[in-house]
Amino acid sequence: MTKPLSPRTTRELPELDPLLIWTDIPGTSLGVAASGVRKHGRDDLVVFRAPGNAAAVVTRSTAIAAPCRWTRERVPGRIHAIIVNSGNANAATGEQGERDVKTTALRAAELLDCSADEVLVCSTGVIGVPMPMEKVLSGLESAARDMTMSAERAANAILTTDTTLKQAGCLHEGFRVAGIAKGSGMVHPDMGTMLGFLVTDAAVRPQELQDLLQRVTDRTFNAVTVDGDTSTSDTVILQATGTDEPLTPGSSSWRAFELAVEAVCRSLARSIAADGEGASRLISVLVEGLQTDEDAAEAARAIASSNLVKCAVHGADANWGRIVGALGAHSVPDLDQLDLDIAGIPVLRCGQPIPFDESEAKRALSQDEVLIHAHMPGSGRGEAWGCDLTHGYVDINARYRS
Amino acid sequence: MTKPLSPRTTRELPELDPLLIWTDIPGTSLGVAASGVRKHGRDDLVVFRAPGNAAAVVTRSTAIAAPCRWTRERVPGRIHAIIVNSGNANAATGEQGERDVKTTALRAAELLDCSADEVLVCSTGVIGVPMPMEKVLSGLESAARDMTMSAERAANAILTTDTTLKQAGCLHEGFRVAGIAKGSGMVHPDMGTMLGFLVTDAAVRPQELQDLLQRVTDRTFNAVTVDGDTSTSDTVILQATGTDEPLTPGSSSWRAFELAVEAVCRSLARSIAADGEGASRLISVLVEGLQTDEDAAEAARAIASSNLVKCAVHGADANWGRIVGALGAHSVPDLDQLDLDIAGIPVLRCGQPIPFDESEAKRALSQDEVLIHAHMPGSGRGEAWGCDLTHGYVDINARYRS
Repeated sequence: MTKPLSPRTTRELPELDPLLIWTDIPGTSLGVAASGVRKHGRDDLVVFRAPGNAAAVVTRSTAIAAPCRWTRERVPGRIHAIIVNSGNANAATGEQGERDVKTTALRAAELLDCSADEVLVCSTGVIGVPMPMEKVLSGLESAARDMTMSAERAANAILTTDTTLKQAGCLHEGFRVAGIAKGSGMVHPDMGTMLGFLVTDAAVRPQELQDLLQRVTDRTFNAVTVDGDTSTSDTVILQATGTDEPLTPGSSSWRAFELAVEAVCRSLARSIAADGEGASRLISVLVEGLQTDEDAAEAARAIASSNLVKCAVHGADANWGRIVGALGAHSVPDLDQLDLDIAGIPVLRCGQPIPFDESEAKRALSQDEVLIHAHMPGSGRGEAWGCDLTHGYVDINARYRS
Repeated sequence: MTKPLSPRTTRELPELDPLLIWTDIPGTSLGVAASGVRKHGRDDLVVFRAPGNAAAVVTRSTAIAAPCRWTRERVPGRIHAIIVNSGNANAATGEQGERDVKTTALRAAELLDCSADEVLVCSTGVIGVPMPMEKVLSGLESAARDMTMSAERAANAILTTDTTLKQAGCLHEGFRVAGIAKGSGMVHPDMGTMLGFLVTDAAVRPQELQDLLQRVTDRTFNAVTVDGDTSTSDTVILQATGTDEPLTPGSSSWRAFELAVEAVCRSLARSIAADGEGASRLISVLVEGLQTDEDAAEAARAIASSNLVKCAVHGADANWGRIVGALGAHSVPDLDQLDLDIAGIPVLRCGQPIPFDESEAKRALSQDEVLIHAHMPGSGRGEAWGCDLTHGYVDINARYRS
């Protein structure tokens, strides 16, 4: 009997604290309003107020939305608040879109008593439609008037096609990190799909915070963007409200802080993958081997983004041929030395199929999360998360705009 | 009223001759047998006999099947015949797979009176299962015994999940070119999906034939491999049976010959896309602009391979945002100058949405073929073909192996 591969946990992440939420970080407050941009009477506008240094990672798409341009020009730097609306992405809206972002930031600055350059804006929803600015501005006023809303209400207000709230928090060696995210159409992320708002009580210099956020994003949120695509509006922002002496990169405190940020981002990333449009199960891929962590992460993404792998997992079919095919098509070497487990069941050793019990495999693949674990020569290690491909995905996206 | 873009036909291809088939080329003959590899009593083995110089393009996958290795080592060169079976891909079968290819070629050489190095082998079907060699060899004997079969019977015998026969022929300035292909799981090509067998009465030197086939394949069959993936077994072979003075590259005859080959390959490539698993319509993408033809072809493939575009076309939804998103995610520049037509309906001019009649768009997108036509600054030109994403695709691939 062949033993399953045991995933090495080279990166020991701290545990999450399910009770720690965004508003637990000192200096933060939230405002929420139903502006009518999305649906009448439905919360769809949030003011995330957390004065401090901030970093942001925004979409690399050349079809970048106006709010992302504004953000890119202002971080890393000192940020006071973020205005977020769901319902309209303010993308493909030309110069009017740029003006609308500025108008929103100026009005928020007046209401929150800061400068417009300290206000970021995030928008998610349909593209190519001008922002209904009257609704946005009146919603903004209403949200800023009562900054005592709960994290849960804010987490709900930023959703679009999501079916679940996405929150995570971590308390690790004295550092508090909490996050709220949205994202659902992430099976092949494309249109205004993912937003993430993180806040911490750590004190960190802007550029150092930026470098940390980029590293962590590559290992977490970018491991969900299964084919390397990003949307017009993808944005992750990390605000650090701490006022002590800033952390020193490389110190043991710094390492503890980075692990706490990664634990929160990883949890949010997995929530997004699990809530992929129409998804019935989360696909987690762990690749150990290849020359570098980047190579391994790319191989993991190749598996998670294959339509044929997604369909096989949907059918609870331990079809290892699909996984070998995805790796081969992405020019992954040494496939004659591949060890592969699907849902804990060994299916290949040294590239050769080994017998397994089909009904046991069917049962194992019917869980909410299916781990695909590949092991090859080399010391790299990379993860990716995706979801199965279902009728539901086709239905949602065939009638998206109609 | 905005006028639709009119696609420039910079590459005027000759018309196809629907009556010209594989067996019309002098010197060719076909044998077919039901070997039992695929299903009992169903034709599944073909001997394509066409002595002459040959070229081949095989998969670039690192999970390459044993028959493709054998082909790669023998072309360009003189080839007598090709043995093709459907039902088993002889991939991920290790050294036994290599031995089985050699055994097949040796036996074919005895039966057809040539050398084993003049025999190519192509296999398509499940992977990871050793070839049932007794069935293969007895099928081969039976096929070689009666080399008077029809092209239609051969075209049928090589199919797996295909729903239609794929044949094309062209007579242009005295050159005859005919082809037979199979391919269906090409929405994201992955596993033993595409085979093409072309033959011509032209006389061409091996290396020159190889260069031509690679060029034409990049513009045709590789424009169907929507995300650049290739399977373990993808193979296109062109045999030239002519015995006159070989054609001179660059001459006007050579250009006429290349256009005839391209016309046949293009038709077969489109047939494969249209018969994509579960497909209800063909998606044709034409991109005019960008720096080079390669850039334009890559942008066209980005559109054709987007799951979100595929779903929108399935829903007959003129969702131009999905197309802009796919281009943006692939870093296509100058999207603020994009002109876009979907099914002949102008939807963007200079990157800005223009109004269109939704019910007219719905009708136009409900045709069997939907043309997405993008125009940007630059003189490149590239095409790609794909198909919509349907419940049928999910069903076929969820139960593929179960």
